[in-house]
Amino acid sequence: MANKQLNIGLFGFGVVGKGLYDVLHSTPTLQASIKKIVIKDANKKRSIAAENFSTNPLHILEDESINVVVELINDPDAAYDIVKTALQKGKSVVSANKKMIAEHFEELLQLQEENNVAFLYEAACCASMPIVRNLEEYYDNDLLKSIRGIINGSTNFILTKIFEEQLEFKAALTLAQQLGFAETNPKLDIGGFDAANKLSILLAHSFGVIAKPGDFIFNGIENISLPDANVAKEKKYSIKLVANAKRLANGKLSAFVLPQFVTAQDDLYHVQNEFNALTTESTFADEHFFKGKGAGAFPTASAVLSDISALGYNYKYEYKKIHHQTDTELSNDYYLKVFISTDEINKINKDEFEWIEEWHNELKHSWLIAVIHAEKLFNSDWWKQHGVSLVLCPNAVIETVEYKKISRRSLELAGVV
Amino acid sequence: MANKQLNIGLFGFGVVGKGLYDVLHSTPTLQASIKKIVIKDANKKRSIAAENFSTNPLHILEDESINVVVELINDPDAAYDIVKTALQKGKSVVSANKKMIAEHFEELLQLQEENNVAFLYEAACCASMPIVRNLEEYYDNDLLKSIRGIINGSTNFILTKIFEEQLEFKAALTLAQQLGFAETNPKLDIGGFDAANKLSILLAHSFGVIAKPGDFIFNGIENISLPDANVAKEKKYSIKLVANAKRLANGKLSAFVLPQFVTAQDDLYHVQNEFNALTTESTFADEHFFKGKGAGAFPTASAVLSDISALGYNYKYEYKKIHHQTDTELSNDYYLKVFISTDEINKINKDEFEWIEEWHNELKHSWLIAVIHAEKLFNSDWWKQHGVSLVLCPNAVIETVEYKKISRRSLELAGVV
Repeated sequence: MANKQLNIGLFGFGVVGKGLYDVLHSTPTLQASIKKIVIKDANKKRSIAAENFSTNPLHILEDESINVVVELINDPDAAYDIVKTALQKGKSVVSANKKMIAEHFEELLQLQEENNVAFLYEAACCASMPIVRNLEEYYDNDLLKSIRGIINGSTNFILTKIFEEQLEFKAALTLAQQLGFAETNPKLDIGGFDAANKLSILLAHSFGVIAKPGDFIFNGIENISLPDANVAKEKKYSIKLVANAKRLANGKLSAFVLPQFVTAQDDLYHVQNEFNALTTESTFADEHFFKGKGAGAFPTASAVLSDISALGYNYKYEYKKIHHQTDTELSNDYYLKVFISTDEINKINKDEFEWIEEWHNELKHSWLIAVIHAEKLFNSDWWKQHGVSLVLCPNAVIETVEYKKISRRSLELAGVV
Repeated sequence: MANKQLNIGLFGFGVVGKGLYDVLHSTPTLQASIKKIVIKDANKKRSIAAENFSTNPLHILEDESINVVVELINDPDAAYDIVKTALQKGKSVVSANKKMIAEHFEELLQLQEENNVAFLYEAACCASMPIVRNLEEYYDNDLLKSIRGIINGSTNFILTKIFEEQLEFKAALTLAQQLGFAETNPKLDIGGFDAANKLSILLAHSFGVIAKPGDFIFNGIENISLPDANVAKEKKYSIKLVANAKRLANGKLSAFVLPQFVTAQDDLYHVQNEFNALTTESTFADEHFFKGKGAGAFPTASAVLSDISALGYNYKYEYKKIHHQTDTELSNDYYLKVFISTDEINKINKDEFEWIEEWHNELKHSWLIAVIHAEKLFNSDWWKQHGVSLVLCPNAVIETVEYKKISRRSLELAGVV
């Protein structure tokens, strides 16, 4: 395959854009060069010469010599406009904007097909790790059973600090921001939105399901407290924010992003700080585990570069699962075993549970371990309110409930109601 | 990319060949079918109909309707003849025969180029894991600093049993053979030959270096004893057979396969039983860690299948590193920190060491920790003889020695000589 010359128009010159610029200039084998960089603020001081920059998007979008657009800006709406126009003009596009991609997945898929151009976004999921490419190429014929992983670096960094250094949530968040591991708007990370956007993209490439974050259960780690971490420690668990998609016995797919207790035998237990990881389980290859840096300018730039390099030999995602596995759909028809803690007992809606396994009433920290139908979590948000935290137990997904639903009377006897 | 119809001629119907047959019949999306299976023994009872089989290789090699040859036989010489002929006849070839590939790498590379056909062998390295493809595609522009991993499943299984169940080496080997994790000839595994063959293949795809096992230091685990395992445990280490290639400060490459003490902080520590794993370290993406099943019929068949699938869209290795990084060469000009134990003190050639850090004389088990120049290991085999075991220390590679060479007198004072 002959490598073609890539003339790049770059949108955004933040840490990743700057990282890409540096990386591109250290890899002599790639036939690619940045022709123009479009930025928002012309007056900001830059480390490279002013003639590289413009504030007018048309200087890239209408330059016919530019055949690759690399979009690395924060604003997902502006990013969508840029990517859409670029694809319509027949330019290949590389992006790292998971929110934009998750929100517009279906339109972007159509735009790629209509204009017969490539749109690559390896950096949008787990930064440096070649996850999208492997899901797309390698788990093509071997039927995937599940993917499960830590796909947000800043929340993992925060949880690591809460566990290792006994920091309170807010102190850990501040540290993550100081080190550049948190998004501009921390709510995206700590509220679970970023991980949900990534899971949305992964669902398409692993199971052929097009779903937006609103289509599945997700939450972040804002309400995880030090007492929760201490309960986990007593049980020899760690807490991780885990994205999960698993084929149920009925062929449908469970999908969620929730904090989870993980045991020391779980590969995810050993994933610390800003690292990300993904476990795949497939019929023949069995379990694979990938771990790599999920945040940071250079790891992200490295993934963007790998996409640029792939464009050199005309690589495109084929969306094989979407085209072949058209019958897979999401389902909330299963149960989850959960730990729920609260500062105020009335915030917990006990009637929602199938049964309660453990119940602890401690001063200012009550918690229980119970089983709940996933649809009930999907349709409510009492468990997301301030002062309540919900953490999945290990092996949380239960497909068949053999116990009888707990009676009001037995709850009374247990002192629960 | 249009998928082309693949008509497969299969050589070998052992566990992997049979596994592939089963896997192929469970993946309806792949346009591939097995047209003929060539076997050695026509009288063996088979689970599928007799008309699928032939004992004549020409029934595949001269059948023009067969465009893919899958070679899954044990004999590396016969395998080489088959692969060579198939490539010359313009057929794409998939093989899992690491020994054959490592031994004939240069010729096979030339045959691919001369005949403009694809030769894929993902299953030859770490069975199910997509290691070759990722090294080839993903670490293309981002400069690799090192690869390091556990790439032989049966030795890892044996070491796990020695550690976890306090089995003696021979009992652990027998168990591995019973479970089908050891090669027909166990010497290939336990002598380190299999891992060396795989490292040889990985060197080409990661650093562009074509080298045979004889070109670098390697050994297996035959001489690892329970007392060695106990020393490791006391130091809170595990012992793994580790393949390593690392770019030295002078730009050259160190490469070896040796048993190594690994700490609990090392990702390889948690790789148990027949699992394989590889850590890559690169300039921008930083560290990646991959783990998956390195042995077994289905994991191997799964990798073979992924190669067959890749042939469907005309995928070929481009050997980018070989073509672009032509200046990289192996070097033994560095030092290794090693643990050496013996049942008989005179088997250790103490004059070879730069210095000795620890020295223990126990009844029937003497051991020392010392630093030795790599070239001295490469050029000798006193450290491989029966009754001597050599295990690398963590962070074994030392590039610059600041200490003075130990004097004869200080050895005498320490009671060493």
